[in-house]
Amino acid sequence: MENNKSTLVVFSGDLDKAIASFIIATGSAAMGNQVTMFFTFWGLNILRKEQYVPLQKSFMDKMFAKMLPRGPEKLGISKMNFGGLGAKMMKYTMKKKNITTLKELIEMAKELDIKMVACTMSMDVLGIKKEELIDGLEYAGVASYLAEANEANINLFI
Amino acid sequence: MENNKSTLVVFSGDLDKAIASFIIATGSAAMGNQVTMFFTFWGLNILRKEQYVPLQKSFMDKMFAKMLPRGPEKLGISKMNFGGLGAKMMKYTMKKKNITTLKELIEMAKELDIKMVACTMSMDVLGIKKEELIDGLEYAGVASYLAEANEANINLFI
Amino acid sequence: MENNKSTLVVFSGDLDKAIASFIIATGSAAMGNQVTMFFTFWGLNILRKEQYVPLQKSFMDKMFAKMLPRGPEKLGISKMNFGGLGAKMMKYTMKKKNITTLKELIEMAKELDIKMVACTMSMDVLGIKKEELIDGLEYAGVASYLAEANEANINLFI
Repeated sequence: MENNKSTLVVFSGDLDKAIASFIIATGSAAMGNQVTMFFTFWGLNILRKEQYVPLQKSFMDKMFAKMLPRGPEKLGISKMNFGGLGAKMMKYTMKKKNITTLKELIEMAKELDIKMVACTMSMDVLGIKKEELIDGLEYAGVASYLAEANEANINLFI
Repeated sequence: MENNKSTLVVFSGDLDKAIASFIIATGSAAMGNQVTMFFTFWGLNILRKEQYVPLQKSFMDKMFAKMLPRGPEKLGISKMNFGGLGAKMMKYTMKKKNITTLKELIEMAKELDIKMVACTMSMDVLGIKKEELIDGLEYAGVASYLAEANEANINLFI
Repeated sequence: MENNKSTLVVFSGDLDKAIASFIIATGSAAMGNQVTMFFTFWGLNILRKEQYVPLQKSFMDKMFAKMLPRGPEKLGISKMNFGGLGAKMMKYTMKKKNITTLKELIEMAKELDIKMVACTMSMDVLGIKKEELIDGLEYAGVASYLAEANEANINLFI
C-alpha cells in the first residue's frame, strides 16, 4: 500500500464526538496512515489544560474562557447530557468496560505521531492562548489543513 | 468508470441526519458505487428493533436502553424537536409530499446491497445486544471501517 | 497539481458551522480547487433572503417558514446559544477582531465561483421556494452532488 493520509477536522467539543475522533485517528495511525487532526471552534476545548491559566484578557475573552469547558474531564455529551449526568454515565460505563478514556486516547495519539493542530483563527475568536492548551500541538490556519486534505484518502468533519 | 466506494459513519441518531445518511447512501449505491454505512454511538438507535427485547442487563445498560429511542419511528430531529413535535411535523410533511420514509430507505438500502455495519465497541458502551438490532447487519470495529474508507472516494461522518 | 475538486454538504444551519463551511470552501477555492457546496435541510436557512417573501403556502409550510431563521443574521450557534446571546457574542467578538462575517464569506464564495447548490428535495420538505433564497444558486438533487463527490479529493458533511 502507498503512503496514505487521513485528516480530521474536530469542530465539536462534545465528549462522545471527541472520543469518536480519537478512536478513528488512532486506528488510522495504527494502520500506518499519516494522520492530522485539525481542532477548530469547540474542538479546542478538548485541548485545554485542566488547570486555570491566569492571563491578561479582554472582558469577552474572559467570558468565553469561563463558559467553555477546560479539557477532556469537563466535556458534555451531544445527546442526553442532562447537565453533565449523561457524560458521567458514559465515562462510568466506559471505565467499567475497560474502554480507553479520552485522556488516554490523546496520549496515544501523541505516541502514534498524530499531528494535532490548533486552528489559530478559532483561538483568536474564542480568545484562547497557547499557554492554555496542552503541549505537543502545532498551530496553523485553514490553508495548512486544506493542503493536507487535498492529498489525503480519508477526510472527515466531526 | 472504475469501481468506486463510498463510506458513511453514521454517528448521529437524529431523524433528519439519519434520513440524509440513507438518501446519500442509497443514491450512491444507485449510481453503482459500493457503499458501507458504519453505525456508531447514537447511530445505533436507527437500527434498534421497535419492540422491546427482554435481556439480562446491568443496571447502567438498562438505563441506557430505556433512555435511547428504539428505531426509526422514535427518533427526534436535531433542531426544533420541541419534545417530538418537530419530528412529527417533519414526518407528516414528508408523507404528504410522498417522500420516502426512513423505514423505507432502510429497506431500500438492504435491497441495494449496502453493507450496514454496527460498531461493536459502541454496542458495548451502550449495552446494546445483537438481538435488539434489526436483521441483515454486519458487526465490526473501527479497523474494518478504516480499511474500506482508505479505498473509498467518498467518506462522510454524519 | 492536477485539477482538484472539493465538495461540502452543508446540512447544519448553525452560525458557527456555517462560518466553518464557508472558511473551508473559500480557502479551498483560493488554493485553486473547484468547490461545490450542497445546502440541504437546515443549511438552506443560510441561503434565505432576510426579508419576508409573500407566497401561497400550505399551513405546514407556513409553520416551517415562521420557525426557521431567515439568513445569516438570524442563525443561532450550535453550543451555548442561550436564546441567541451566544450568537451575538460570537458575532460581536468576530467583528471586533476583524474576522470576515458570514455575509461577507457568502459574497466571497460567489466571487470565487464556488458552486452553491440548494437541495431541491429539502426545499420541498421544508416548503422553501426559489423566490425565498438568495440569487446565484443552482438547484439540484443528491445525484448531482454525488457525481461531483465521486471525483473530488475533499468531501465533507457539515
